[in-house]
Amino acid sequence: MPAYDDLLSFQRVTEALAQVAGRTGWDQEAMMPRGAARQRSEEMAALEEVLHARRTDPRLGDWLEEAHAKDDVADANLREMRRSYARNQKVPARLAAELARVTSLAQGIWAEAREAEDAGAFRPVLAEVVRLRREEAAHLAEGGDPYDALMQDYEPGGSADAMAEMFGTMRPRLVALREAALAAPPAPRLTGHFPKEAQLQLAREIAERFGYDFARGRLDLAVHPFSSGSGLDVRITTRVDEAEPFGCLYSTIHEVGHACYEQNVAADHLLTPIGKGVSMGVHESQSRSYENQIGRSEPFCGWLYGRMRDLFGEIGVASERDFYRAVNAVRSGYIRTEADELHYNLHVMLRFDLERALMRGELEVDDLEEAWNARFEADFGVAVDKPSNGFMQDVHWSIGLFGYFPTYSLGNLYAGCLMAAARAELPGLDDALAQGDPSQATGWMRDRLQVHGALRTPAETIRHATGAAPSAAPLLDYLDAKFTDLAK
Amino acid sequence: MPAYDDLLSFQRVTEALAQVAGRTGWDQEAMMPRGAARQRSEEMAALEEVLHARRTDPRLGDWLEEAHAKDDVADANLREMRRSYARNQKVPARLAAELARVTSLAQGIWAEAREAEDAGAFRPVLAEVVRLRREEAAHLAEGGDPYDALMQDYEPGGSADAMAEMFGTMRPRLVALREAALAAPPAPRLTGHFPKEAQLQLAREIAERFGYDFARGRLDLAVHPFSSGSGLDVRITTRVDEAEPFGCLYSTIHEVGHACYEQNVAADHLLTPIGKGVSMGVHESQSRSYENQIGRSEPFCGWLYGRMRDLFGEIGVASERDFYRAVNAVRSGYIRTEADELHYNLHVMLRFDLERALMRGELEVDDLEEAWNARFEADFGVAVDKPSNGFMQDVHWSIGLFGYFPTYSLGNLYAGCLMAAARAELPGLDDALAQGDPSQATGWMRDRLQVHGALRTPAETIRHATGAAPSAAPLLDYLDAKFTDLAK
Repeated sequence: MPAYDDLLSFQRVTEALAQVAGRTGWDQEAMMPRGAARQRSEEMAALEEVLHARRTDPRLGDWLEEAHAKDDVADANLREMRRSYARNQKVPARLAAELARVTSLAQGIWAEAREAEDAGAFRPVLAEVVRLRREEAAHLAEGGDPYDALMQDYEPGGSADAMAEMFGTMRPRLVALREAALAAPPAPRLTGHFPKEAQLQLAREIAERFGYDFARGRLDLAVHPFSSGSGLDVRITTRVDEAEPFGCLYSTIHEVGHACYEQNVAADHLLTPIGKGVSMGVHESQSRSYENQIGRSEPFCGWLYGRMRDLFGEIGVASERDFYRAVNAVRSGYIRTEADELHYNLHVMLRFDLERALMRGELEVDDLEEAWNARFEADFGVAVDKPSNGFMQDVHWSIGLFGYFPTYSLGNLYAGCLMAAARAELPGLDDALAQGDPSQATGWMRDRLQVHGALRTPAETIRHATGAAPSAAPLLDYLDAKFTDLAK
Repeated sequence: MPAYDDLLSFQRVTEALAQVAGRTGWDQEAMMPRGAARQRSEEMAALEEVLHARRTDPRLGDWLEEAHAKDDVADANLREMRRSYARNQKVPARLAAELARVTSLAQGIWAEAREAEDAGAFRPVLAEVVRLRREEAAHLAEGGDPYDALMQDYEPGGSADAMAEMFGTMRPRLVALREAALAAPPAPRLTGHFPKEAQLQLAREIAERFGYDFARGRLDLAVHPFSSGSGLDVRITTRVDEAEPFGCLYSTIHEVGHACYEQNVAADHLLTPIGKGVSMGVHESQSRSYENQIGRSEPFCGWLYGRMRDLFGEIGVASERDFYRAVNAVRSGYIRTEADELHYNLHVMLRFDLERALMRGELEVDDLEEAWNARFEADFGVAVDKPSNGFMQDVHWSIGLFGYFPTYSLGNLYAGCLMAAARAELPGLDDALAQGDPSQATGWMRDRLQVHGALRTPAETIRHATGAAPSAAPLLDYLDAKFTDLAK
């Protein structure tokens, strides 16, 4: 198979350059000095130009035509390369470079404007990002739905209709559970001071307990927690609030879920198209399983309560059960990343509807803040008080991620399927979690799902791991049991 | 000038990618997790492949032929691009790839062999590096002196004959000063414990005093101090020994000299061929001026003594004068990077003579260690005790840097010229230094030299700043005055 070998050699260099581009993004968030933004946007554009040239190299078309798969690995690599090649052929190089330049710039403007609560300073560059992404979506969709076209970058096989159906199934049960939870006595809150260094020490310890390998990664601070990289260099970030330790700890567990997926892909697949997570939805299934289904479970909370008492002394809650209730408090808050498991998907639904409208040209950036605020008050019963609690809270839109948000809910759905299957096979799981040991569950995820990377499509990846097609039922049953118990 | 504009647009992208490659190198030394090495070597090779392809792109030849300079900036950019293109055209692609592969391998072998004091493990790969660099030098020299040809990568316009003449002038006066210094009573030594965080705090404060802009840079720890990047993102590293603070502080000042040259190049030149330091020699003139002529001056040492007493309490020396003597202690050590101002150039002379003989085929790698040890004992009066204190101490030869070492001495010579000119114009300099304020001197360097980047050739850069052609006399007069006083 000389064509396949040529293709894979060429692709290996592209994948290596993509890792460099990803790490340059990490650097921008975690390390870059503030005054470097203008130069950095040229650097990112240069990398994007090189990557785009490689991804649209005419030789790829010839090789892809000639290449034949000798096994399932080659078959999957060809599937990924064909999808990527077809996608990139459709987008003009000028547009790809412009998108890279503008989103890099917009991210910096977003961060400063958000800090200053200055929506007006963010709006013009966001309008530019939206204009460019609409243009790209038109190229990709070739007459079809622009939102569906953009979704393929994050969830191959996903569609706005499928997402709308998923949300339609979820919404009534989530709303009912939320109402019951809000009617119950409020959960206790932690009190006290949680020094930054101690939080980071605990975050590092928990990251290791969940299987994160620091020999192939590192944990740093950034405005927005994220995981970056594949294979031998997978880095995570977190943030610290000295009055509120759960943000740091559960963000870390969340990013560890993403990072373990990337670290645990079989070494044979390093720097090949399948040597990484297959989609954002499957990725999110890992982060949400780690964060919520394991990290916010009653037995693990029991262990964490003891560990936090050791580290921080009195923390304002008097029992493991109260701590568990504090960790899983249901409140109508502004911030998606701080939302409880019931509100989280309502946050996503709001963004899904708004960004779909933006991409379809049914909503303009000038009207976005008002639309957000109206919808938020309708869904959450609270008025948005400032942009950083509203439409400027997430980095996503500033960097052009439209079509990405629904993968968070899809990830919750997948997590429900995966953890139901894992629990059925791991009767000792809760006893181990009560000792602060999540390795049975994380090992199950590693062996059933993570090692395979992008060998199978997203839906097939879940089916291979669980033995059944994905559905919302396990997630909704899990939420029902957990939050009905908590509302007692 | 369409050809010139095309050329500069193309080059801007290349320069941006070179910045990314440089920062990837920084990351490798300062941030990379240890388990990432294998993946990182593929990433670096991929970046090198892209950069090499751009630097030998056939369009460059056409553009360079057609392009005409409309002003001195365009003239200088064309000079730099023509030199680089001609250089890369002369080296066969096979040889360039082989050199990249072997030097990357050799650096790893050097590091392990040096750690194990195993010269035999290093010799075969060094012989291979020497063989390849000789071959490359023959291509570059086209019948001329191979060492001169290699020097052009580091010091355009430099030559072995000019270096030999420089060293011939320096040597007798350095030897005489060294003998007088070693005959004088030994300098006092600092005692005490110097906590890492306090050293880094002081290093940051001093970096700012010397004009380093943290909004466009950062200071981190690495095994070897270095400066990396140009323009809006110029990062430095240092190292900390809690028993010996001068290593951290003076390495920092040295790297700040390099970094300020890169930070202060006029913004108009950002990401163009002249938007960076013009040569290694001129670069070293900045780091050595900052480190030695300013940082190790008596008035600045007086201020530093007070600052260190504030931070560290008793440090084992009883007066400003004793502190100044401790900072400038003259000792016959093995290690170039730890050498005082008198011994430093003797270290360089040894390397220059040996590497010139290697490149001319008058010395073979099998005889290198013996030649080094004999010469070291003759020059320094001490027998080399182990390879890491001898011919294996520097990374340079393992990565193929032959013709680089003399630029360190040339930098000292240039620093002598520059500081003599600056002092003649800045009568209040010593009073300001005694207050810990080097801004008169660093401002003079910025305005006279740094802002211009590579607008002029190295020798013209010095002549423009000082009004005179470079010569060794100012450096030797400075050393004479300083060390005659210190030996009293």
